[in-house]
Amino acid sequence: MHTQRFYTLTASCPDRAGIVARVTGFLAENGGWIFESNMHTDHEAQRYFLRIEVRADSIPFMLAEFRERFRPIAEELGMEWKITDSAVKKRVVLMVSKQEHCLYDLIGRWQSKELDIEIPCVISNHETFRGLVEWHGIPFHYVPVKADNKPAAYAEVRRIFEEVRGDVMVLARYMQIIPPDMCRDYPGQIINIHHSFLPSFVGAKPYHQAHARGVKLIGATCHYVTEALDQGPIIEQDVIRIDHSDSVEDMVRYGKDIEKAVLARGLRYHLEDRVLVHGNKTVVFR
Amino acid sequence: MHTQRFYTLTASCPDRAGIVARVTGFLAENGGWIFESNMHTDHEAQRYFLRIEVRADSIPFMLAEFRERFRPIAEELGMEWKITDSAVKKRVVLMVSKQEHCLYDLIGRWQSKELDIEIPCVISNHETFRGLVEWHGIPFHYVPVKADNKPAAYAEVRRIFEEVRGDVMVLARYMQIIPPDMCRDYPGQIINIHHSFLPSFVGAKPYHQAHARGVKLIGATCHYVTEALDQGPIIEQDVIRIDHSDSVEDMVRYGKDIEKAVLARGLRYHLEDRVLVHGNKTVVFR
Amino acid sequence: MHTQRFYTLTASCPDRAGIVARVTGFLAENGGWIFESNMHTDHEAQRYFLRIEVRADSIPFMLAEFRERFRPIAEELGMEWKITDSAVKKRVVLMVSKQEHCLYDLIGRWQSKELDIEIPCVISNHETFRGLVEWHGIPFHYVPVKADNKPAAYAEVRRIFEEVRGDVMVLARYMQIIPPDMCRDYPGQIINIHHSFLPSFVGAKPYHQAHARGVKLIGATCHYVTEALDQGPIIEQDVIRIDHSDSVEDMVRYGKDIEKAVLARGLRYHLEDRVLVHGNKTVVFR
Amino acid sequence: MHTQRFYTLTASCPDRAGIVARVTGFLAENGGWIFESNMHTDHEAQRYFLRIEVRADSIPFMLAEFRERFRPIAEELGMEWKITDSAVKKRVVLMVSKQEHCLYDLIGRWQSKELDIEIPCVISNHETFRGLVEWHGIPFHYVPVKADNKPAAYAEVRRIFEEVRGDVMVLARYMQIIPPDMCRDYPGQIINIHHSFLPSFVGAKPYHQAHARGVKLIGATCHYVTEALDQGPIIEQDVIRIDHSDSVEDMVRYGKDIEKAVLARGLRYHLEDRVLVHGNKTVVFR
Repeated sequence: MHTQRFYTLTASCPDRAGIVARVTGFLAENGGWIFESNMHTDHEAQRYFLRIEVRADSIPFMLAEFRERFRPIAEELGMEWKITDSAVKKRVVLMVSKQEHCLYDLIGRWQSKELDIEIPCVISNHETFRGLVEWHGIPFHYVPVKADNKPAAYAEVRRIFEEVRGDVMVLARYMQIIPPDMCRDYPGQIINIHHSFLPSFVGAKPYHQAHARGVKLIGATCHYVTEALDQGPIIEQDVIRIDHSDSVEDMVRYGKDIEKAVLARGLRYHLEDRVLVHGNKTVVFR
Repeated sequence: MHTQRFYTLTASCPDRAGIVARVTGFLAENGGWIFESNMHTDHEAQRYFLRIEVRADSIPFMLAEFRERFRPIAEELGMEWKITDSAVKKRVVLMVSKQEHCLYDLIGRWQSKELDIEIPCVISNHETFRGLVEWHGIPFHYVPVKADNKPAAYAEVRRIFEEVRGDVMVLARYMQIIPPDMCRDYPGQIINIHHSFLPSFVGAKPYHQAHARGVKLIGATCHYVTEALDQGPIIEQDVIRIDHSDSVEDMVRYGKDIEKAVLARGLRYHLEDRVLVHGNKTVVFR
Repeated sequence: MHTQRFYTLTASCPDRAGIVARVTGFLAENGGWIFESNMHTDHEAQRYFLRIEVRADSIPFMLAEFRERFRPIAEELGMEWKITDSAVKKRVVLMVSKQEHCLYDLIGRWQSKELDIEIPCVISNHETFRGLVEWHGIPFHYVPVKADNKPAAYAEVRRIFEEVRGDVMVLARYMQIIPPDMCRDYPGQIINIHHSFLPSFVGAKPYHQAHARGVKLIGATCHYVTEALDQGPIIEQDVIRIDHSDSVEDMVRYGKDIEKAVLARGLRYHLEDRVLVHGNKTVVFR
Repeated sequence: MHTQRFYTLTASCPDRAGIVARVTGFLAENGGWIFESNMHTDHEAQRYFLRIEVRADSIPFMLAEFRERFRPIAEELGMEWKITDSAVKKRVVLMVSKQEHCLYDLIGRWQSKELDIEIPCVISNHETFRGLVEWHGIPFHYVPVKADNKPAAYAEVRRIFEEVRGDVMVLARYMQIIPPDMCRDYPGQIINIHHSFLPSFVGAKPYHQAHARGVKLIGATCHYVTEALDQGPIIEQDVIRIDHSDSVEDMVRYGKDIEKAVLARGLRYHLEDRVLVHGNKTVVFR
C-alpha cells in the first residue's frame, strides 16, 4: 500500500480512438498527477479498460465533486466506472468453517497492517475459531447451516453483512455453497478460494480427484462467486509440483499453502480495485 | 547421462516385508555396486515399485545371465520387471506435422548428444521438414493421412516402426489421433505432448478453450497414448503464467516453450527407464 | 504425517557395494516392513546416504534394542546414523522479533496439527507477540538483546532451550545474529529463514539490495545456522516473480509469502528427519 | 506479433503532472488509435516511462513526419524517446561458439516466423555450426578469437555487424568476453544470456559454483552487455528446481532449457521495444 492518499479511477468502455486523451486531458486540466496507470484493450471484445491512480493532493476538489465532474466524460464514452479513495478502508467480512489456514493467514496480514482493511466480523457455521477471532478483537457470528435451515441461515448472513456495511465477503475455505439469489445480489462482492486449478476438478474433494488422475501439479483458484458452481470469473491461480510419492493427505497439505497465497493475492487485487470483470473474465492490473 | 555403463532394473510387485533385502541381497552376493536406487510404496494399491542402477563392471556376468539369475526372485515376489543396459541406445521414432518447435528442440538435443539416442527416422503427414531432417542425416518418411486412407496410413506407420526396430514413438505435435488398435498394441511406447494442463481442455484448440475460460496459467502435459483421447498416464506437466493481455496467439507462443520443455523432460524419464506405469498413473523416479 | 507409527533410520557412510543389502537384510531378518525408503550416492564425495521408515509394529523389539542391534552394522559400515520414533514429537522452540508472518504461519500449522510438534515456548527480544502466543497456551520468554548484554542474553536463551529440552530452534525472522559459540554448540539444530535467494544478497536489507540490482525474481532460503553468516547448509529455497513496478515495500510483502512457505517446508523436512548434512551441503529426501 | 501495422513510441522523462495527457492528446488530435499502452513511474528516480503502440492506419502521415511532429512535445517534456515501425524487421546478428541449444532454438523460432526478424548472419569463433546455419540460407562468418588476435577479431566482428546493418547482437552462449570499447559503443545493443541467476555466480563455471554451494534452484539471466562483466541491466531471469541428486552435468542440462527460454523471452521484449533502460535497471513492459 502506498502511504500517499490517492483516488483510483477504474473504467471500461467500447474501444475507440482518443479515450486516454479524453480521460487524462480532464485530469491534467485539473492538475491531476498520475501515480500509477494501466490500460488494456480487449481486441476481441473491442472494449477498453483502464485504471488510474491520481494523487489526492494534486486535485483541487473532493471525491464527490471529482465524480460529478467526471460523469459527463464517462457518459460520452459509454463507460462503466467508479472512483475510490485510498483513505477509505474496505470492509472485509470473512466466512470460515473448520479449516484454519486461510483464517490465520488473513488475520496475520490484517494484524500487521499488510492488508490495510477493516474486518468488521467473521461469520462461521462452526464455533471452532470464536476464541482466536475474539482474542483479536473481531466480532464472531456463529450462523449454523443445516439441511433444513438454509434460507434462514443465509438471510442471517446477509443481514449481518448489511448491518456491518461490508464491502466484500471472503469465503476463506467456507465449504458451503452460497445460494443463487445471494450470488446474484452481490456480483463481484463474494470471493472464493477453490482448492484446484480450475477448470480441472470442479466441486467436492478436488485433491482426491487430482490424486486419482495422477497429475504432476496441483493448484488453487481465487474467483468471484456466481450462480454456476466454481465457474465464476477467475482472479488468480497458482500451482505447486507434486509427485507419485505424495498421498492425498500430502496434497491437501501442499494445497493449503497455495490456497492461502492465492487467496491473499486475489483479495489484494480486488481491494486495490485492480480487478475489472467483463463477462466471465477478469482484467487484473497487477 | 552417466559415462559409466550400468544395468537398470525396474520392477513392481505386491507390497510385503523384505522386498529390498531380497533384491539387493541378490545383487550384493554377486558383487553388484548400486549406482542409484529409488523405491516407492503405493500404500493405497499396496504395491511396491523400485528402480536400481548397478554398475555393469561390478557384475561378473553378462546381461542375459543377469536376467536369468534374477528371474526366480522376480517370480517369487510376483514382479513385473525388466533389466536394461545403458550401452544400448534407445531407438526413437519422431512423428511430426507442420509445427517445428518440438522437432527442432529434439533434433538439437540429439545432435549435441544431450539425448543419447538413435533417431532411425522421422515420420510426417507433411513434407514440411524433409529438408531439415535429411540434412541431419535422418531418413524422412512422408505418410499422408487423409479421411479416406487412415487404415492404410497407420499400417504404413507401423510397418516403418517395426522395420527400423523402434523402441518408442514420440508424437512431437503430430496433430493426428492414433487409432485405437495401434494404442493397444504399443502400450507405454507412444508418447504424446498435449498442449494443455490435463485434465483441463481435452481435445482440439486447448489454448482457445483456456482463453475463453480466462485462466491465469496455461500448461502442457506429456503422457502415454491410450485409446481414450488425452486420458493416458501422465508422465510430466508444467505451466506458465499468462494474463489478460495475452491473446490466443500469445498463449500459443508461450505454450510452445512449455510443450517442448515438458516433452523433452518426459521423454528423458522414459528413456532412462524412470517411468513405471500402474493402472492409469505413473511413478516417475526423477 | 502418517497415522502409523514407524521408526526412521537415517545414515551416511563411505560408498561401497552391499550397503543396502546389509541394512535391509538386517531389517528383513527381524520382520521389518519398509514404509518408505530413499537412497542417494554422492559420487564426488564417494558417500552413501539413506533414510528408511520401518513400521514400528513389524519390529519385534523396542527402539532402544533396535538401536543396540543395529549398532554393529553401523560400525562395520562406518556410518553416522540415528534412529527416531514417529511417536515422539519434536520440541520446537520458536524465536521471533517484531515481524508476524512466520509466527502466525507456524502457530496456525501447529494449532491444526498439520505440524505434529510440541512448541515448549517462544523466545523473543520484544514483547510484541506475548499476547498471541500465551493465548495459544504457549509460554513466552522475553529476552531482550542489546549491544551491551549479548553474552548474558544468549546464555539465557541457551538456558531456556536446555530447560525445555528443545530439539531445534527456529529463527522465524528473529533478526539477530546468533553468536559463534552457540552456532558451534548446536550444529544442525538452529534453522533460519533468510529473506533472499542465497548466495545473492547476504546480510542486511536483502530486498533493498535486490531492488537496487534490478532482479526479476526474489527469493528466500531456509538453512542451518553456522558461524559464517548466511553461509550454512541450504535446506530449501524458492522464488517469486517481480517486475519494475514493484517497490521495495512490494518486494518485502511478496517476500513474506515466500519466506513463510520456504521456512515451513524446510522445517518439516528437518522434523521428519529428511535432511542429512554433509560438509556444507544437504541431502533432502522429499 | 500483431498482424496489424503500428508505430511504437517509447519514451522516458522526468515525472510531472500531465505527461500522458500531452502525449495522448497529440495522438488523438491526429486520429491516433492506441493499440496497446503501458506506463510506469519510478517514484524513487522521479522518472516516467511509457510505451504506446498506435495503429499505423489511424495516423494521417508517415513515420518521418510523425517523428517530426512529436519532436517538440518530447523536447518540452525532456524526453529520451524513439518511434519504431512494426513493418521494419529488426536485424539480429547471432554470435555463437560450440554449444547448440540457443542457436537451434532461435533458428527454429525464426524459421517458423515466431520471431519475425531478419538474421543477416551468424558469427562464430568455431566452424561447428557453419553447415546448419548455411543450410538455413543464413551467411556464416568464422571469426576465430585467440589470445593474440583479439583486437583484430573484434574489429572484424564490428565490421561485419556494420556491414549487415545489424540492430542487435545476441550472444547465444558465445563464451567470449566482449572488449570494453565495443560494450561502450553499442549500449543496449548487445544481449547476453548468462547461465546463472545473477547476481549469484558471476563469471566462469556458474553451475560448478552452484553445485558447490548446494543451492536448490538454478537459473539464467538475460541482460545487456556492459563493460562490467555480468553486471549489465537485467532483462529477464528464470529458475528451475534441482536437488541433491543432480550432478553438475545434470545442472548443465537443466540449465540449457532455462537459458534458451530466458534468452528467447528477453530478446523478444527487446525486439518489440518493450525494454527501457534507466541507469543499470530495466523497465520491461510485458
